[in-house]
Amino acid sequence: MGQGTYVEDDFERDTNYIEDRVTTDGAGEHEWPVEAGRYRLVAARACPWANRAIIVRRLLGLEDAISMGICGPTHDSDSWTFDLDEGEVDPVLGIPRLKDAYEKRFPGYPRGITVPALVEISSGEVVTNDFAPMTLDLSTQWTAHHRDGAPDLYPEALRAEMDEVMERVYTEVNNGVYRCGFAGTQSAYEDAYDRLFTALDWLEERLTDRRFLMGDTITEADVRLFTTLARFDAVYHGHFKCNRQKLAELPALWGYARDLFQTPGFGDTTDFAHIKSHYYEVHRDINPTGIVPKGPDLAGWGTAHGRESLGGRPFGDGTPPGPPPEGERVDPAHNPHIGPDGVVHPS
Amino acid sequence: MGQGTYVEDDFERDTNYIEDRVTTDGAGEHEWPVEAGRYRLVAARACPWANRAIIVRRLLGLEDAISMGICGPTHDSDSWTFDLDEGEVDPVLGIPRLKDAYEKRFPGYPRGITVPALVEISSGEVVTNDFAPMTLDLSTQWTAHHRDGAPDLYPEALRAEMDEVMERVYTEVNNGVYRCGFAGTQSAYEDAYDRLFTALDWLEERLTDRRFLMGDTITEADVRLFTTLARFDAVYHGHFKCNRQKLAELPALWGYARDLFQTPGFGDTTDFAHIKSHYYEVHRDINPTGIVPKGPDLAGWGTAHGRESLGGRPFGDGTPPGPPPEGERVDPAHNPHIGPDGVVHPS
Repeated sequence: MGQGTYVEDDFERDTNYIEDRVTTDGAGEHEWPVEAGRYRLVAARACPWANRAIIVRRLLGLEDAISMGICGPTHDSDSWTFDLDEGEVDPVLGIPRLKDAYEKRFPGYPRGITVPALVEISSGEVVTNDFAPMTLDLSTQWTAHHRDGAPDLYPEALRAEMDEVMERVYTEVNNGVYRCGFAGTQSAYEDAYDRLFTALDWLEERLTDRRFLMGDTITEADVRLFTTLARFDAVYHGHFKCNRQKLAELPALWGYARDLFQTPGFGDTTDFAHIKSHYYEVHRDINPTGIVPKGPDLAGWGTAHGRESLGGRPFGDGTPPGPPPEGERVDPAHNPHIGPDGVVHPS
Repeated sequence: MGQGTYVEDDFERDTNYIEDRVTTDGAGEHEWPVEAGRYRLVAARACPWANRAIIVRRLLGLEDAISMGICGPTHDSDSWTFDLDEGEVDPVLGIPRLKDAYEKRFPGYPRGITVPALVEISSGEVVTNDFAPMTLDLSTQWTAHHRDGAPDLYPEALRAEMDEVMERVYTEVNNGVYRCGFAGTQSAYEDAYDRLFTALDWLEERLTDRRFLMGDTITEADVRLFTTLARFDAVYHGHFKCNRQKLAELPALWGYARDLFQTPGFGDTTDFAHIKSHYYEVHRDINPTGIVPKGPDLAGWGTAHGRESLGGRPFGDGTPPGPPPEGERVDPAHNPHIGPDGVVHPS
């Protein structure tokens, strides 16, 4: 994503998204039909909300059904660009800025140009940027295109409890770190800090005797928590002043985060260089120099986490995905745990 | 202190101090004689260089010989003020700003108005602000006024090695954190970060089998390292981007820092609220919002450090100082390990 505003001294996320969905039959109003090759996922590795979609697409093996364009980590007021691509133009959509796809559909589009976004390739028009339903729809609507062994990330039997957990993780943690970082006053910041760490204490306790958020197997809830945890010590701790402890000082959460990081689909989609570059270079209002910290030492992410002793099977009755396709691998220079095969190799 | 400039993208400390000294006989040029009650030490608890003088004065029991004025943690371009005192005026010097004492002696004084400073009470004129010799002179020139049991903080037999250690600690650590925080370019910052952590790795190794920097007993070298370590996780880690690890992640240094913190004279002169307030509120060029982080959790400072197993006697043949005099105690609200008696009580 990358949009938010100050409202009466409190950070408030612009939650007006393009609420279209891609569904199996595309029959409802504002629904588009599932169709392999029709849409392109535009993401940025820096962005935690886009990182969700990158992870879910990979876990489900949707690479062939939905291609992916990757925006660079930094951007100006025109938002995300394809500056990593040859000629700084997305090779499939043929546009230099994600904004072009928004404008194509809605000339003068007044709201934030955010990732992740699904773009219809033939028309070049953005279909949706509504990140929360987007990943759930990848799980529930695109089943015909899932790989063999794809995990069930949104199991029917767990949905009621999952929705509650994900809601709390969203308001208190995913968005909670932003509430700290963009607080306009000392007291708004302190309230935000208290809310965030209250939620992290809850998660620390929940994960002490539970391997994953919903039990023995990874779900969408883990994906959503992971992308914030992966950025915690690298960015939120210092840049957003979320500094009661580092993640590395919260034993259950740190073990849990490393467990996921070392699971195919998670760490192998994590680009620490893009992450740090994005936050520290784009948010000049809180980091005017634009200098990007050299730390933290990332060695810990590869260390033994001991979470296997809690039991569980990360992929349930399914299997892990294979290595990411060439062209979609994170640069090993950006994540010291990734080999040239694009896979995380624990130390 | 609190002064420095950008020079060719690198932070360079203004090292032009008023080089007068207070010596036993005051006989040399630019020397003033030791005399109980003649001088006032002006300090700020926020400032690591002033904190040195506060610690040494207390370890040596010089409270009755040299009174102390304390400036508040924040200041404007006119530098340190007595805004904590009744009427915002120092009760002994009768001035609202430390600058007044500099101007009294040197009208139009062009350099930084820094703490610590010694001021002659009768004339109201600053005597010296040269922080490095100042604390050594408290040890070597004021011996007639030391308390019974005062430690020898600058032992003759160790001086050659001590001077080398202190020089490296000064350039690489005490000043090294500022070099990171005020770097004007990414590459200047990265060089500064590498220099700093190279030195911290050296100290981590040196302190692994040595209780204190020079061996079994505390010296001035420990005082000088401590005041930087006490600020490391609270300020330098985030604000100055010294974030390879937290101090709390470097086992020997963290044990050493806690050992000192729990030794009379060190933790009981450490005011975390003033420290955080100073850096985060004054340096608007790197923290434009002025918001002060609520973290880190300070509980760890009171925990068992296990350093006794390395042997040693912190005060050698001497004894620890008693509680700080009333009126010089750190507010327990500013340091959770300090009791109403002004003393650190380990947890």
